[in-house]
Amino acid sequence: MDIATIIGLVAGVALVFITIMMGANPAIFVNIPSFILVVGGTLAATLINFPLGDVLSVFNTVKNTFVQKVASTENLIEQLVEFATVARREGILALEGHASEANDEFLQKSVQLAIDGTAPELIKDILTTEIAFMEDRHAMGQSILNAMGAFAPAFGMIGTLIGLIQMLATLDDPSKIGGGMAVALITTLYGAIMANLIFLPLAGKLRVRTTMELLQKEIIIEGILSIQSGDNPRVVEQKLKAFVSPAMRERINVGR
Amino acid sequence: MDIATIIGLVAGVALVFITIMMGANPAIFVNIPSFILVVGGTLAATLINFPLGDVLSVFNTVKNTFVQKVASTENLIEQLVEFATVARREGILALEGHASEANDEFLQKSVQLAIDGTAPELIKDILTTEIAFMEDRHAMGQSILNAMGAFAPAFGMIGTLIGLIQMLATLDDPSKIGGGMAVALITTLYGAIMANLIFLPLAGKLRVRTTMELLQKEIIIEGILSIQSGDNPRVVEQKLKAFVSPAMRERINVGR
Amino acid sequence: MDIATIIGLVAGVALVFITIMMGANPAIFVNIPSFILVVGGTLAATLINFPLGDVLSVFNTVKNTFVQKVASTENLIEQLVEFATVARREGILALEGHASEANDEFLQKSVQLAIDGTAPELIKDILTTEIAFMEDRHAMGQSILNAMGAFAPAFGMIGTLIGLIQMLATLDDPSKIGGGMAVALITTLYGAIMANLIFLPLAGKLRVRTTMELLQKEIIIEGILSIQSGDNPRVVEQKLKAFVSPAMRERINVGR
Amino acid sequence: MDIATIIGLVAGVALVFITIMMGANPAIFVNIPSFILVVGGTLAATLINFPLGDVLSVFNTVKNTFVQKVASTENLIEQLVEFATVARREGILALEGHASEANDEFLQKSVQLAIDGTAPELIKDILTTEIAFMEDRHAMGQSILNAMGAFAPAFGMIGTLIGLIQMLATLDDPSKIGGGMAVALITTLYGAIMANLIFLPLAGKLRVRTTMELLQKEIIIEGILSIQSGDNPRVVEQKLKAFVSPAMRERINVGR
Amino acid sequence: MDIATIIGLVAGVALVFITIMMGANPAIFVNIPSFILVVGGTLAATLINFPLGDVLSVFNTVKNTFVQKVASTENLIEQLVEFATVARREGILALEGHASEANDEFLQKSVQLAIDGTAPELIKDILTTEIAFMEDRHAMGQSILNAMGAFAPAFGMIGTLIGLIQMLATLDDPSKIGGGMAVALITTLYGAIMANLIFLPLAGKLRVRTTMELLQKEIIIEGILSIQSGDNPRVVEQKLKAFVSPAMRERINVGR
Repeated sequence: MDIATIIGLVAGVALVFITIMMGANPAIFVNIPSFILVVGGTLAATLINFPLGDVLSVFNTVKNTFVQKVASTENLIEQLVEFATVARREGILALEGHASEANDEFLQKSVQLAIDGTAPELIKDILTTEIAFMEDRHAMGQSILNAMGAFAPAFGMIGTLIGLIQMLATLDDPSKIGGGMAVALITTLYGAIMANLIFLPLAGKLRVRTTMELLQKEIIIEGILSIQSGDNPRVVEQKLKAFVSPAMRERINVGR
Repeated sequence: MDIATIIGLVAGVALVFITIMMGANPAIFVNIPSFILVVGGTLAATLINFPLGDVLSVFNTVKNTFVQKVASTENLIEQLVEFATVARREGILALEGHASEANDEFLQKSVQLAIDGTAPELIKDILTTEIAFMEDRHAMGQSILNAMGAFAPAFGMIGTLIGLIQMLATLDDPSKIGGGMAVALITTLYGAIMANLIFLPLAGKLRVRTTMELLQKEIIIEGILSIQSGDNPRVVEQKLKAFVSPAMRERINVGR
Repeated sequence: MDIATIIGLVAGVALVFITIMMGANPAIFVNIPSFILVVGGTLAATLINFPLGDVLSVFNTVKNTFVQKVASTENLIEQLVEFATVARREGILALEGHASEANDEFLQKSVQLAIDGTAPELIKDILTTEIAFMEDRHAMGQSILNAMGAFAPAFGMIGTLIGLIQMLATLDDPSKIGGGMAVALITTLYGAIMANLIFLPLAGKLRVRTTMELLQKEIIIEGILSIQSGDNPRVVEQKLKAFVSPAMRERINVGR
Repeated sequence: MDIATIIGLVAGVALVFITIMMGANPAIFVNIPSFILVVGGTLAATLINFPLGDVLSVFNTVKNTFVQKVASTENLIEQLVEFATVARREGILALEGHASEANDEFLQKSVQLAIDGTAPELIKDILTTEIAFMEDRHAMGQSILNAMGAFAPAFGMIGTLIGLIQMLATLDDPSKIGGGMAVALITTLYGAIMANLIFLPLAGKLRVRTTMELLQKEIIIEGILSIQSGDNPRVVEQKLKAFVSPAMRERINVGR
Repeated sequence: MDIATIIGLVAGVALVFITIMMGANPAIFVNIPSFILVVGGTLAATLINFPLGDVLSVFNTVKNTFVQKVASTENLIEQLVEFATVARREGILALEGHASEANDEFLQKSVQLAIDGTAPELIKDILTTEIAFMEDRHAMGQSILNAMGAFAPAFGMIGTLIGLIQMLATLDDPSKIGGGMAVALITTLYGAIMANLIFLPLAGKLRVRTTMELLQKEIIIEGILSIQSGDNPRVVEQKLKAFVSPAMRERINVGR
């Protein structure tokens, strides 16, 4: 998933950059005040619209979208079935050592709860609450990115209107009309690029990713509860495979 | 939250102001009749659309968004747990003195109801009804601000059309076309700024804030009912922490 | 509510009128054929979209929005509590004389049904059906006004396109381009004013008003059923006050 | 209803036609290639979007909207009450002769089912299924007309872009710019007229009409089941009148 | 269905092509860098928005829309009734040979499950899960195509803004303004054609097709379960015909 995001971002920026460089006068497209107006205006409107803490944490959430690799669901199921085999053979306490192997923090916490002998209903409650807050946090992130995707073109237009009015009001030499209008249009261009290459697609990615993480966390909860109740590894495997597509099921290779 | 709203508003206005001042002719952007048309037209359409009382109270609601500080949810939970400790040790009547300490009117009222020995179902009914009306009032406020965010650009466009028609109809000297068009475009600029820097983000903030206040009021109801039923302070704490995110739970410092 | 609608409409029209009169050439804004095209086109599309009877009755519904005063909910509750007192003291038949005092037709009918000794379930059925049809009628009215708010700018644009094409096709003297374009833009102006100052805000008002009337009619049903079942006036009062906001409750002054 | 559709369509087309004829050069508005591009492009996109059979049947559905008169709901109820009277007096088999009088195919079929002694549950099943498919068919018709209402302006804009590019690319004589632009704008005009005078209002009418036909068919089902169960004609009348507005109830004149 | 898609696509492209060829200068409409910017930008934004795997599989899904013929629902029901007859006469194992005749993979799998004596609940579970994943896959495909239908015009506009700014900034010879603007507008044209002739209608077709395939798969599940439970072929027929329209029912010709 990360790769697609990065390929898309790099390719999109490169395409726009090359298109601009092919023209006669690329320097005209760099206009710091225009950039500040669009970025600053978008941020200002976003700060009025959302609490400061949530706006700050959206940058973190977006960064995670790039850096954190989504664990493979196939591996996750294989690992849970392996845990089931260990728990079945050596007792649930034997998972103590394996829990730290898991590279998913949520999985570690879930295994620890099971080892501690927490009641199944409580495990489910604790983990479900955590998922609900993750979902809320991501939903807020999507709202913020979508709002930025609406504010960016709006401030682009505001910048263009300011530029046009300045240019038209001081129009005494018609030959200068072109240059003034070119400058005025740059904010609209900035707003359109930010919205369509950054804010809106990132909001979409966050939504897709939330769906995927939710599925994995639900698989973990189901798996841990099944292991704790002493289910046969084969039963655990069947229960977890029901969460994934037939095609993915065939890729899952349980080492038994 | 207030800080974000104020930072955003100040920063947004400053950005637009600086962008205008950097141009050759800032005076052209001040046009009182244009301002009156856009603000007046937006207000007129809003008054046709909504009852007078609701339109007037939206200004109050918005003012509160700036002035009233949203109480910290952490403090609220700490306070409720403290109340539970007092009630457990000295009986519920001992809360009499503490109720007035609470800086939240809703919390004061809730404590008073519990002290008066009101039946739990009735307490829940009374407080839930109050919350429902707060929610309705805020929902009406959001509708009004969203409608203003749609009417402002519309009257901006109406002003520009009037200006364009006047300018085009009396066009005998082509050199004056620029000045006329500049003036005509000012209403569109006013409408776009009002919608994107004031009405739409404030409507969004009201929605976020409603969600937060609802959560706090639900915590208060749960807490008071739990205290009244004589729950152990530790149980009260656990019940209330279930309403907040894991991160916030760690920041709650119950003085026990 | 009527006052807000009328203030808004008068103020909006006055603002547009004054803005036009301040210009050099106000006569250009009066263009009968343009007006006929926009109004006629909007009506034509509305007639294709909705049954004739419903389109005709929307004018009636809108007229009522201005003429009929929404009864005060406070008065309504006071009156119902008074009826309860009378019925309790002198028997339900004693309401015979008071029913005609009520200036609300729905209230009169409800009281009459109770006096006639109609079974409570039947009263509820009859009155609820009547409310449902009022709601349907208003919902249809909103649909029609919203559709007109979408068709008016569309026919404004159609008129401008026709004007532009005519002007451009016969363009031999560039000095006439301004006048032709001014005339062409007038239909767009008409469409924008009609949509934003008449159709869309009126649709909104109808929605707000429907909500209010529904609440009052629900209060009447609850009150009449409570009176018929012989409830104590104090109980009737409590039941009805639950429908209104805490602020309004304090304004209700039951004469007991 | 048909009359409103036809009045609207004739009036709308006449208004546009007259507006064009009042201009200096009406011939410019007739442009066969532009017409083919907009109509053809809209149809092409519609065919990609929907199955061929459904697109073809939408024309049939629209034709029916004009030709088929919606039966009067008042008459329908009067007729069903009359059937109830006959069935009560002479037995349900006596409806044999009356069924053919009914000018509604669905009513005829319903009566025939009752005469054949079909079990009530089966009658309800058969008729409800038929209604469900009618609803699906109409919903598909609305989707198609709404899609055409979105594609028509899009292909209008595509035509204008093609015209503008051709005109601008070959621009050596500035005096010809007007004529070229006039021709380019014609496709946008065609698209706007088609969408706002034909596709969108017809989609709306289909929706209104579906609602009305559904109501009538539900009245028929209720009536037939009531007659079959041997209900008193007065009971049948009461049951059916509950489906219609109080105003309409007074217009129903049962000949008893 | 395929035929409509192909007719629509060919007709739409041909119409645009002919309209362009009729103009004076068709070569201007071929602009490789403009094409790369719009297609590449749309793909880049889509890759940021969706996981790589899903974007790749949308091309496959679209290809299937053209290549795979939707089986006739009439034939499917006839075949299932035939299977019921065989199973009734010779036992369910006799379907072994007939299963391979079925040209629908899902039908083959369903028959095989019945032959293997799988419990009815398990058959239902397995097949329903498979349908759910098909639905998810198609829903993702629709989301991606709809997003592409929104990104394509956006990148068309971005390209036009870049072209306009370049042209205006280097404007020294007014006679060249036409050519520059023509080139700038080409990306907008490309974006509009892609969205309205490819992405949006294909997303629509995918939705229609999903509905149809779901219906067929539900018919298969119902049929197989009915056959397995030993239902009389006439009963199977009745059960399956309830899924289709009255018109289609008459076209079903069960060979009995």
